[in-house]
Order: sequence, then C-alpha cells, then structure tokens
Amino acid sequence: MYIVPEKLGESNVVSPLFVQTNTRIVGTSFIPDDAFIPLEIEHYANFPGEVKQKYFEKAGPREKIYFNSENTVVGIVTCGGICPGLNNVIRSLVVELWFHYGVRNILGFRYGYEGLNPEKNLPPIQLEPEGVDEIHDEGGTILGTSRGPQDPEKMIACLRSTGVNLLFCIGGDGTHRGAYQLFQTVQNKKYPIAIIGIPKTIDNDILFTSRTFGFNTAIEEARKVLICAHTEAKSVRYGIGLVKLMGRDSGFVTADAVLASQLVNYAIIPEVPVDLYGEKGFLAWLEQRILTREHALIAIAEGAGKEWIKENKTQRDASGNILHPDIGIYLKDKMVEYFHDKQIPIQMKYFDPSYLIRSVPANAEDSAFCDALARNAVHAGMTGRTGITIGYIHNQFVHIPIEMVITGRKKVDPNGHLWLSVVASTGQPL
Amino acid sequence: MYIVPEKLGESNVVSPLFVQTNTRIVGTSFIPDDAFIPLEIEHYANFPGEVKQKYFEKAGPREKIYFNSENTVVGIVTCGGICPGLNNVIRSLVVELWFHYGVRNILGFRYGYEGLNPEKNLPPIQLEPEGVDEIHDEGGTILGTSRGPQDPEKMIACLRSTGVNLLFCIGGDGTHRGAYQLFQTVQNKKYPIAIIGIPKTIDNDILFTSRTFGFNTAIEEARKVLICAHTEAKSVRYGIGLVKLMGRDSGFVTADAVLASQLVNYAIIPEVPVDLYGEKGFLAWLEQRILTREHALIAIAEGAGKEWIKENKTQRDASGNILHPDIGIYLKDKMVEYFHDKQIPIQMKYFDPSYLIRSVPANAEDSAFCDALARNAVHAGMTGRTGITIGYIHNQFVHIPIEMVITGRKKVDPNGHLWLSVVASTGQPL
Amino acid sequence: MYIVPEKLGESNVVSPLFVQTNTRIVGTSFIPDDAFIPLEIEHYANFPGEVKQKYFEKAGPREKIYFNSENTVVGIVTCGGICPGLNNVIRSLVVELWFHYGVRNILGFRYGYEGLNPEKNLPPIQLEPEGVDEIHDEGGTILGTSRGPQDPEKMIACLRSTGVNLLFCIGGDGTHRGAYQLFQTVQNKKYPIAIIGIPKTIDNDILFTSRTFGFNTAIEEARKVLICAHTEAKSVRYGIGLVKLMGRDSGFVTADAVLASQLVNYAIIPEVPVDLYGEKGFLAWLEQRILTREHALIAIAEGAGKEWIKENKTQRDASGNILHPDIGIYLKDKMVEYFHDKQIPIQMKYFDPSYLIRSVPANAEDSAFCDALARNAVHAGMTGRTGITIGYIHNQFVHIPIEMVITGRKKVDPNGHLWLSVVASTGQPL
Amino acid sequence: MYIVPEKLGESNVVSPLFVQTNTRIVGTSFIPDDAFIPLEIEHYANFPGEVKQKYFEKAGPREKIYFNSENTVVGIVTCGGICPGLNNVIRSLVVELWFHYGVRNILGFRYGYEGLNPEKNLPPIQLEPEGVDEIHDEGGTILGTSRGPQDPEKMIACLRSTGVNLLFCIGGDGTHRGAYQLFQTVQNKKYPIAIIGIPKTIDNDILFTSRTFGFNTAIEEARKVLICAHTEAKSVRYGIGLVKLMGRDSGFVTADAVLASQLVNYAIIPEVPVDLYGEKGFLAWLEQRILTREHALIAIAEGAGKEWIKENKTQRDASGNILHPDIGIYLKDKMVEYFHDKQIPIQMKYFDPSYLIRSVPANAEDSAFCDALARNAVHAGMTGRTGITIGYIHNQFVHIPIEMVITGRKKVDPNGHLWLSVVASTGQPL
Repeated sequence: MYIVPEKLGESNVVSPLFVQTNTRIVGTSFIPDDAFIPLEIEHYANFPGEVKQKYFEKAGPREKIYFNSENTVVGIVTCGGICPGLNNVIRSLVVELWFHYGVRNILGFRYGYEGLNPEKNLPPIQLEPEGVDEIHDEGGTILGTSRGPQDPEKMIACLRSTGVNLLFCIGGDGTHRGAYQLFQTVQNKKYPIAIIGIPKTIDNDILFTSRTFGFNTAIEEARKVLICAHTEAKSVRYGIGLVKLMGRDSGFVTADAVLASQLVNYAIIPEVPVDLYGEKGFLAWLEQRILTREHALIAIAEGAGKEWIKENKTQRDASGNILHPDIGIYLKDKMVEYFHDKQIPIQMKYFDPSYLIRSVPANAEDSAFCDALARNAVHAGMTGRTGITIGYIHNQFVHIPIEMVITGRKKVDPNGHLWLSVVASTGQPL
Repeated sequence: MYIVPEKLGESNVVSPLFVQTNTRIVGTSFIPDDAFIPLEIEHYANFPGEVKQKYFEKAGPREKIYFNSENTVVGIVTCGGICPGLNNVIRSLVVELWFHYGVRNILGFRYGYEGLNPEKNLPPIQLEPEGVDEIHDEGGTILGTSRGPQDPEKMIACLRSTGVNLLFCIGGDGTHRGAYQLFQTVQNKKYPIAIIGIPKTIDNDILFTSRTFGFNTAIEEARKVLICAHTEAKSVRYGIGLVKLMGRDSGFVTADAVLASQLVNYAIIPEVPVDLYGEKGFLAWLEQRILTREHALIAIAEGAGKEWIKENKTQRDASGNILHPDIGIYLKDKMVEYFHDKQIPIQMKYFDPSYLIRSVPANAEDSAFCDALARNAVHAGMTGRTGITIGYIHNQFVHIPIEMVITGRKKVDPNGHLWLSVVASTGQPL
Repeated sequence: MYIVPEKLGESNVVSPLFVQTNTRIVGTSFIPDDAFIPLEIEHYANFPGEVKQKYFEKAGPREKIYFNSENTVVGIVTCGGICPGLNNVIRSLVVELWFHYGVRNILGFRYGYEGLNPEKNLPPIQLEPEGVDEIHDEGGTILGTSRGPQDPEKMIACLRSTGVNLLFCIGGDGTHRGAYQLFQTVQNKKYPIAIIGIPKTIDNDILFTSRTFGFNTAIEEARKVLICAHTEAKSVRYGIGLVKLMGRDSGFVTADAVLASQLVNYAIIPEVPVDLYGEKGFLAWLEQRILTREHALIAIAEGAGKEWIKENKTQRDASGNILHPDIGIYLKDKMVEYFHDKQIPIQMKYFDPSYLIRSVPANAEDSAFCDALARNAVHAGMTGRTGITIGYIHNQFVHIPIEMVITGRKKVDPNGHLWLSVVASTGQPL
Repeated sequence: MYIVPEKLGESNVVSPLFVQTNTRIVGTSFIPDDAFIPLEIEHYANFPGEVKQKYFEKAGPREKIYFNSENTVVGIVTCGGICPGLNNVIRSLVVELWFHYGVRNILGFRYGYEGLNPEKNLPPIQLEPEGVDEIHDEGGTILGTSRGPQDPEKMIACLRSTGVNLLFCIGGDGTHRGAYQLFQTVQNKKYPIAIIGIPKTIDNDILFTSRTFGFNTAIEEARKVLICAHTEAKSVRYGIGLVKLMGRDSGFVTADAVLASQLVNYAIIPEVPVDLYGEKGFLAWLEQRILTREHALIAIAEGAGKEWIKENKTQRDASGNILHPDIGIYLKDKMVEYFHDKQIPIQMKYFDPSYLIRSVPANAEDSAFCDALARNAVHAGMTGRTGITIGYIHNQFVHIPIEMVITGRKKVDPNGHLWLSVVASTGQPL
C-alpha cells in the first residue's frame, strides 16, 4: 500500500530540464513516477511474513511536468517562528524556478499568511535571482513571518487576484494545517492552484521526516550555550547551569545537543517524565551530584515537565500551539527553593537561548540541505502535484501528503537508541 | 543474500547493559542478531521481480556478548591523515568500554600502526575516562598517527605481548587494508583477537557508507575558504579564486562545499573529466566568464584533472596512495599562461586549505555522530565480531565486512542528483 | 605631583631577567624606576600655564628586585563574576614566575576570597606550568571564584600559614576593596607580604585604565547577540528587539557594542538619562520608528534607567554591588504596555545574554593583552611593590595605587566622542 | 615644534554638527584647533631638561569647517591588498558625510587608482547610505582595488571632470605615496581639492600609528591558523608546523599572533636576524627541540630571512614593493634538507594563510575602530585640511602629514617589550 498524491491533470509538458540534460544518459537523472521509498527499512531474517507498510513517492525532477513557464505564477510564504535556512530556501526556490523552469513571475508574500489576507494590505514582493543572491548569508526571513491562520477564503481571493497558481508554504505544523485547509478549499472549488508544503520546524518534530532544515545549525548553537553554562557552573562552588532548549512536544534538540556537547549531567524531555521530588526524584539526584562534584549542568526541553504543574490553563499562541507556563523558570525556582531548604548555597545560572539559536544563518550542512529541499519542492510543484509536503527519510527526499504530516508529531522513543545514547552520555538514572 | 560476519565463539556472556536497562521494556533497546539493513531501499511499483541485493547487519548493543570485562584488553590505534572527530571517537570508545562494559584495560597505541611495531619503541598509553574527558575539544589525535603499513607479524607480536584481544583500528582505506591483513593473520593462527575497523576519511569515499565523521566539519571549513576566495576574486578586476579541496579519488568534499556556499562558478572533480582547451573547454568558458563578470571562483578536487597530465609517474605516499602532481598548481599555471597569451590581466588567488580544514575540532553534528559511531563499534567488538567495520547507510549504523569496504571507493555519480545539483548551483556547462 | 608606591624594602636582588638579556643592550629592556606615564596627554598650544596632573609609574621588569626565587611563595586568587581571560592571566602569572623568576611555589586559592578563609576548608592548588599549559582555551576560571569579602584577619592567617608573601588578587571593584583592606592590615602588622591587584571588570569601568581584559571579547559576543536580535526584530511586523547588556554603572559595553554592530536604533546607558514618557520621550520615539520602519533594535545597559523606578530598595549582592530591579524586564513591560494601549501589535523579543557573553574564552586580542598584563603584574610583585594594581593608559601598562582605583568608577562622558559616535550610529535624538 | 597642516582657506562655514549638538555644553564635543597629542608620552622624573619632540594635531569635529554640503563632491578610492574593515570604512565615510555634513554627491572610484585613470574606462559608482548599509558584513571592498600608481596628471583630470574636491585615499604605503604626489600636484596647480589619506596596512607598519584597521581581525585569524598548525604538528611524530604570516618589512602580525596563541616555539621576523646554520643556529635548535619534544611550531614573517638569500634580484610588485623570494618555501626546503641529512624523519606541515586572513569581515573591535577612523577622516576633510592622513597614537586619532608617514615603516624594536614578550612566550633563545 502506498500513496499517490492527486495530480491536477495529465502532464503534457516536457520538462525544460530535459533539454539541458539530453546530452547525457538521462535515465538516471529524472525520477520515474513509480519510484517509492519505504518508511521502514529494517529487514528481520527470521521474520516469517511480509510487513505491511507505508511508501512515499520519491522526490526529484520528472520528465513530464504540468506547468509551463509562461503561465506559471508562483507564490512563496514563510510562517511561524524563524529558523536557520529560511532565506536559503527562498533563494533556491527562486533560482530553480527562474533558471531551470523559466518561471519569471515569482511573488514573495509578506509576514506569513497575513500577507495572503487582502485586508492586511501587505502587497507581495516580486522576487528575482539578483535580489536573492546573497540573502542566505543572513538569518531570519526576508519575507517576514507571522503566526496563526488566516481565513482560507480570503487567502484564495488573494491567490486568484494575483494569479498565483503554485504556492509554496514554508512552515511548521500550524502552517501545514493552514496549507491543508487551503488545498481542500482549492480542490473543492476546482481551482487549478497547487499547494506545496516545505516543512520548517526547529524542534525537528515533523512526522515521517528524519530531519528538518535549521536543526543541524540549532544543535551547533545549542552546544555553544551548553559550553557556556558548563563554564559558569564549574567556575563557582555549587554552581548549577540550567539551560532551557527548544522542543514544545519533542526532545530532539535537547537530546542532540547533549550528544554533541557531552557536557550535560541530566537531560529532561517531554517524552520521558521525571519526578522532581522523592528519594529517586531529580532533586535528590541533583543534591547528591552537587555535594560530590560541586557543580552540575542540566538541560530541559521547553515542553518537558508538564506533569509537574497542576493548573492546566490551555492558553494558545497565535499559531494554536498550547502555551505552557515557562518550565525553565519553574524548574529554576524549584531548585532554588529545594537547596535553600537544605541550606546548600547553590549558585543558579539560568539560560534561555532560543532566540539566539534560531536567528543565526544556516550552517554549511543546513545550507546544502535547504538547497536540495527547495529544488525538490520546485520539481514537485512544477509537475502539478498538490497537497503534499517535502519529507526526508533514510537520506532521501520524498513527497508526503500534507494530511499525513498533520496527524501528529514525531517523538523521541524513550526506549530507542537516541535516548539511550543520551542517558549513556549524561550518566543520569534511567 | 546477506552477510553474517564471523563470530569468534558462542556468546555466553550476558551484556552488562542488560542489567542497566532491565527496569524497562528491554526488547526495543537490544538489537536482535537477525536485524539487517538493505543497501538499496528504493521500491519501483511497476518493477515485476525481486531485486537481489546486499544486506548489512544492523549495529547496536546485543543481549549476549562474547567478552567479559575482566579478561578484555582493548587497543585503540589511529592511522592516516588527521580528521575532525578522532579525539571524539577515542573518548567515546573509552567511556563506553569503561562505564557500560566495565573494561578497565584500554591501551592507546602511539603514532598509528608504528605504535604496534615493537621495533619503533613506542609504548602504548593507558587510557581512562578522566584523561580523555576533554579531548574532544581539540582537533587531531591525542594518540598520534602515521601513514603506511607495518608488518602484521610484528603487530600481532605486540598484541600478544600486551594482551590486547580487542583492537579498534581508526582509519581510511589503507588502515582497513592493514586491519584486514591483521584479521586474516589472526584468524589463520586462531588467536582470540577481534579486529574492528572504524572508518575515517575526510574524502567521504568509503564504500557502502553514506557519511564518515569529519566530513560535515570539513564542509563547514571549506565553505569558509570559498567565501574568502570569493571575496578575494571579486575585490579585484579579473580576479580568479582557485580553491583546491580534498578528494583524492572522489569529489564529495568539492560537491558539498559548492552546495553549502552557492558561490562557486565551476567545480572540477575526478569523476567528471573536463577539457582544459578547445572551444568548449574550461579555459574558453572561463575567458567568457571573466570578460563579462570580471571575476570567477573555481573549486577543484585534488584528484581531478589526471587526464590533463601525460607523464604518469606512479609515486605513492607512505599509505600507498598514488601521489599525483599537484593539480591545483597545475591548473593555476595553465590559467596564468592562457590569460597571459590572451593579454587579459587576470589576478590569480590560489588556495590550498587542506590542513586548515582537517585539523579543527569536530562540529556539533560530527561530535554526536562520532559518539554514536564509537559506541556502536564497542557494541560490535564486545560481541566478538571481528573483521568488520562500522558503516552508516540510510541513517543507520551497520556492520560491514572489512573485505567489502576495501574493494574500491565510493564515487560521485555524474548522472546522479548530487552532481546535477552542483551543476545547477554553479551554472557550469554539463 | 606623581605617585611613588610604597616599597617593602630596598631592592638588593638582581633580576634573573638580567642574566637572560645581558647579551644585548639591556638599557632599553628594563624600565627605570623614574619612568612615569601622565594621565592627561593632550597638549593645548594656546594654553599658557602648566597643567598640574597625575603621573603613574610605568610597569615592566626592573633591574633590581626584592624577592628571590627560593623564598617566594606566591598566591593567586580570582574573585567576582567570571570574565574572558581569567585563565590566560592565571597561566601567564605561573609561566612568568616559573620560567623567568624561578619561583617554584605557586598556590592557587579556590573560589575567590573564600579560599583564603581557613573556615571554608578549601585547600589551595599547587600550580605548575604543565598543569596550566592549555587552560587559556577555556572560559571561566580553573581556580573557581566567589563574590563578597572575607575577614582580612582570617585571610592573613591563611597567608601566614601557607607562607604566601606575594598575593595576586584578580577581580573588580569589590576585590580591590578587599585587597586594599588586606594591604592595610598587612602594612600595619609589618608583615612582609606584597598585595598586587589585577583589574578584572567586564564593564570596563576601572578608573585610570582605558581597557580591562575580557572587554574586547565581550564586545565580540555582544555584537553577535545584537545581530540575532536585529534578525528577530526585522523578520516580523512591528518586531522590537531589546537587548540588555552588562554595565552596572557604566555604559561602555553598550556603547562599544553599538559601534561594533552599527545595527542599534536606540541605546540607553546609566550616564545619559532618558525620559520614557512624554512627547520627546523614548516610547514616543519608538512608536514613530515602529510605524515607519516596522521594526527596531534597542540596547540597554543593566544599570540604566534607575531614574524610572521610584521604589529604592538598596539590596546588594555578595560583593556589595547594589542590586537594581531588572531594568531589561522593566523596560520590556513598559513597552508592551504602551503599545498595547496604542493598539499597535508589536512583537517583543527580549535578550539577556550576560552569562553567554562573559563565559567564552578570550579572543586573540584579549589573550595577548592578558599575557602582557600578567607578566607586568609579576614584574611589579617581584620588586616588592604592594598595594598597587596594574593599570593601562595610552597603550601603556602602569602601576596604580589600589586606593586610587577604588575611589570611583570610570564613566562614559555624555559629551565625549564615544557617546557622540554612538548617537551618530543609532541616529537617536541627543 | 609641532605640525600644522596646510589649510586650503579660512574656515567660514559653521559645522552642521554644531546645530545638532547645541542643546548641550558643546565645548567638549568640538576639538579646538590648538589640541595636539605628543608622540612621546613617557616622563622621566630624574631627567633634567625638556624633550624636543613631535606633536600631532588631534582629530575630531571642528566648530568651523571649510566645505559646505552643496558644493562638496567626495571621492573614495581603495587601493592595495584587501584588508578586513575596508567596507566598514567606506560605509562610515558615506554615512557621516550624508547624515552629518549633508553631502549628497559621493563617488566611489572602482579598482583603486585605476578608477581615477580615465583611460581605464571605469566610471565611478554613486554611493548612498542605503546601498552601503550592510556592506560591513562582508570582507574585501565593494569598490574593488588594484596595486600600483597611476599618472597624477590623469588622476587630476578625472577629479576635475567629475568635480571631486575632497578625495579619501584608503591604502598603505604605496597608496599614500600616490596620494602625496596627487596632493603636491594639486597644490602646485592651486586646485581647491583636498586629499585625505586613511591608512590601511594589515602589517600594521604605518609610522606614528600604533594600530591600523584589520590588524586585530588578522591576529584573530592568524591565531586560528597557528592552532591548526599546532594540531597538525603534534598529531604526528617529528611533526613540524611552519606558518608564514604577513609582514613584508615588520614582524607585528607574527609577534602578536604568537602572544595571542601562546603556541609557537620559534618566531622569526625581519627585525631580528637569525642564523640558520651553526651550533647556535635555528636548525640546530630545532633538531634539539624535535628530538626531545617530537614536534615544533614555527612562525615566520614573509619579510624575514632576507639575509639567508644571496641572489638579490630586486623585482617589485605593481605597488612598488620589493618582491622577495618566498621565504616560507625557502625555510621549509632548508628544514627538509637538514633533517633528511640527519636522517630524522620529520613531517613538514606548511601553511601560507595570508589570503584567508585578510579576506574575512572585520571583527567587532576593528568594526568600531573603522567607524571612528572614517568619521574622523570626514571631520578632517570637511575642514579643508589636505595632505594628511588619520593616525592613531596613545588611543587617540590624530592628523599626520602624509609626507611624514611615507618616510619609512614602523618596526618591531628587538629590545622592546613586544619582542621580549614574544621570546618569553616561545622560549626561543635571544
């Protein structure tokens, strides 16, 4: 059982890439439409039957495409929090569309989905290669971004009035939910508009995708912060460094930063609940550590510790993400209180570096990744595929139906090797 | 058809990791011995038959192991050119052996295989967690390294006299050839000594392995050099930046550095021959570029351009690698000559940054990768596996028989998507 | 009128440096005891009379010294908040004492002045060149630090029992006050113990000294934070980046970071009071900026804005520094409130990076500076000078009596060129 | 005796800065015309007489200026090798001229003095604040540069035809010689054109100036290279790292990089001749070092070792600098030869990083310095001063007649404290 995304129509257009590559054996360059990547690749020699599993269409340039250059008007929009690599993605979308597919009409919508709401009065920017040539040197997004949904009817009115028939929505969970609404509305009305998602989540928690852009850079920056926190903690007696890292629902940033730094003594993530109090609780462990080693470094994901807090007010931010009380501050206060009671004169050094981590330019690895991601998004869009996003599994880019990626979030497996490696590095109790 | 590596004996020892994890559902943590990862994972829906293909044993901790902590004497040796992450690998080998498997006898051999040659008079260092705790902050290798093989008989005499029964050989192609010789000799003599390889190649050209440690860091550093070369070139009229990058046989460093920087105008790698002269040759292209844009940035892999040079003296370095005439200098001279003849006053800025690229500490991503790599090597070694190296495909660590990895080198496919992405980025003719 | 520091006795010992340099014309290497540097160096051609002014003894090696190597026991202590370069200073003190003056008895006291209080039970560490060889690669202090004074009588008891007769106190205002107390007590009791201060203040607010170590590094790090805050602010509509920087009483970090980044739109420092409200107030200016440019970047020194807050509780930290309410949080709240009332949907990005700025290793410039600073401190100490600290004016190291430096703090002159340059860069109203 | 630069006429124009600052006590902001900074500031208490010495006019804004905004046409030209900070200087010149002095006509000449030669057909660029706003993020020079002089008559024809009456020449020794020729020709012809120099030398060898822009950044980069070379050297047995650093006539880069890194074992600079051979020669010292420590790190300035090479062909580059045979390669070959003869299997790692050092963007300190330097150049130029360059002594910007700075080069004093500190750090023989 595998997934074939809806096509807007039959591909009658020969890819302009064909012309460029036809001095070569072309067969290996274009991806055939029957190429798929399985979700599970492990093979168990002693397992008797066949595994029923998911397959995703392999991404890449197709020999026949749907859109031709003259009639294509492309829109690009960036939504949600900023993330290293946004400008790289914008740049490579423009460059691929312009030079390889001959598209000359590329609109950058301002400030996220707000830029698609005509009432916000934010006219889009015309994008050309020259204007985007150096934007990958900078963090953030030249288009601007915003959180939260806009009325799909209004957004479609905007697409219709600007003539956009291929829209790239770069963003996370909320953005993809918005893109899915847009896709459904467009489908219902039978408008020939393709909607392609490009996943952006610094938490790296998109389903069916091993890695999202900016994550690698984020770990680099998070490691720097952990090194600083370690220095602060061990330069004073009973010093405790506490670093709150990104991860609203998933502990990937925290886990990878622990492994990259090899400095953390205890890591706390949403997927692995921890008792604060009690003989086997975190605070008792920390007391022991502090008394014997005189310093400690703790990393906590922002989404961890929900079980510690009773009062469950479900406030949400503009994107619809649940707003939790600040768990870093909460834990800091509990530690201060605990050691005050124990009369151990700890020195608390608290770090909340999220803005500093996500606003830097993409590192080399993420830059190359963003380039490939954006070009594959263009390849997908130009074939007339819609309602899909660009995933990445087993080192391969694939097409994933947006409705699949918005069904949940990827999590750290508490029994899997990532988390066991973290525990091996920190030495914390299981 | 898949590969099961030879075992030295039946595993009767229960993994000490079992004890540590038995408060959990353990099944998911230990890797069963029948778990394999296929080399090819693409699925073609319209392809009728079954693909006959290679499978590799999945790496990871096993429930039953061969060595027990008291009787195990571990040796570690680093060979060949230095590479970011060597110290991380050494550190994590020691830490995993010590804290998880209880091994207390860990010897670090000095200066590569020379340290295993008793005649060189280089006594090994005793390694302990405290001594290696901060070595991952530094580039290079604390053990020292050297190129070239040593007599396997002498090395085995050294292993026998020091009591080493589990040897980790960290190095590239030559090192693995040496390890294979050692493995064969040990097998023939039926000595209970396990030989585990850990691939180290900054060229990223190990077969059946998508990525080797240090490569990611190397791309980061190579990008910096390309940015500098770009700055030099465009700050003068008719400025040409020429950067020679690593890649004795394969263009991976060059290709990835191009994609990460998006600055290079022409990339030359061993896998894609280029004519220097003629109407469609490189120099004619360059002349056009220089006259219209007034500057250019060229990247060349050190192993490229072999076809340009007739005189084929096959000198080799101490590791047995063929020593080619310096292709960067060669190309530089040809460019200077060409433009001198054309009376175009170019300004040549030549960069040969290999030492600067390979001697830095591992970046965050490589650090986490080295940690996992080393721990998987320990898991493999403790089960009594031998004659294998730790590979990495489709984001999974696997065991690869050393005899397979030394049959050739991984290459950039000139019709594959990596190279086509490079061409898309540079805009150079196919 | 100039200052000659008290000498402990007549210098009868010939400097061991003499031996090392006597194959050269030595006259230029040793500093004569009558060499002074004036505090004011500007010359006004039309000014009729002589300016009565301060002179400081020039630092550097002397031909005759007081201590000889065998009888000298050196103590080193680091106090107050950490600062880039502390380990460099420790390292160069040890290296200069050991290799040039032959001192073999060097004690590192743990955790600031606490390590000199026998009741704290913190035995000092014996320091040798080998142990400190690589410590300058790390931030923080290997000795540990603490805030606050200890009883001078107890500290002297410690010096007497350990035999220390030359103590280097590395720290800021509070540390120098402590050192002065120690100096006075020692003088009164006529103990032959020399007390040398080494100024450490990341705020760069030591009197009579143009620059303190770590400041240069701090500006480098502060600039990175400003770049991030700028990226965050301009990536959203009505984005405001607010960065709180170090500077308890002085705006030097803020001023220099503004000049280094050229990104800040408004800088607020303790020396230049600003009205928050009113037509010409900061918030009205900000409203105008936000409405026209849609984003803004604000930098504020932690000690600024005292005039905004009525409730004047004078809490102090352990070092005796007045604890002000957190002005960054205060200003952030006022901005949010103001724009909420105006119904302008600003997006506030607040940065408090002090720990991240001060915990990194020293940059190249600070490293070279620390080396010179420490060697000059050793030169001063070995002559038997006491009660002085090592200042730096007009690019020259000098001896400053500690009683002079604790009389106040260096301030940014609101009419001077530093502040006028800041205003020129930000474009803020004077 | 002090220097008053020639004025082009009486200052009748009131500085527009006056208006901006007149809500303050202005006296301290404007620099009076009788303010000077002495070259020597040391005071010797026992010295009987008065020292006859040089004074330089203090730089800074003047109350009365010569040029008014409407009639001023400014030219900017960058010459010689690139240097970190060039774009910062260009940016701050434009910003200061535009916002503070109201100048709207600012021309950027292309590719050094070539851009002032009408025959080269290189029309200047119109510079405005918006176009230069982000150029300080990049290394190199947006104007382009070239080496070598152009005919002053032709350059003056260019200035006359473009109407430029205030020219800023950013460059080194050769550039200042060119500027001086231009200044003299202009003076002779009584053209009302002011010529202001801005010193740019990464060697930091401009006379009467303690520091030039880019030097600080260069030391930061040079330190990185030294760390890499150290890693390479100590990772192999008998490894020798040899790093050639900038310094055609002066050893400042080498000396400061040694002090910043504390890693070098032997430093060789032009000012301190060293014997290669003989019992007390460098090679004998190195042999001893290699045999005892098994690795060594050597730094050499490119202009050192002239005494080693007999054949004295005085080739010169386009700027007129004498072209020496490459001393790094020379020394490398001699070392290889020596140890080959001694049958010591050294491993030579040679580094020539000059392009990588000089092409990066300015660090924070240099950025702030460039801003002040450029603004002071504008202040000087707007008063009608000519034939001067902007120096920096004792932490103060001053005006120096160009004819003074071209009389020679600043050198490291072999008996001074900089070099003695280097020797203290390396431990090399005096």
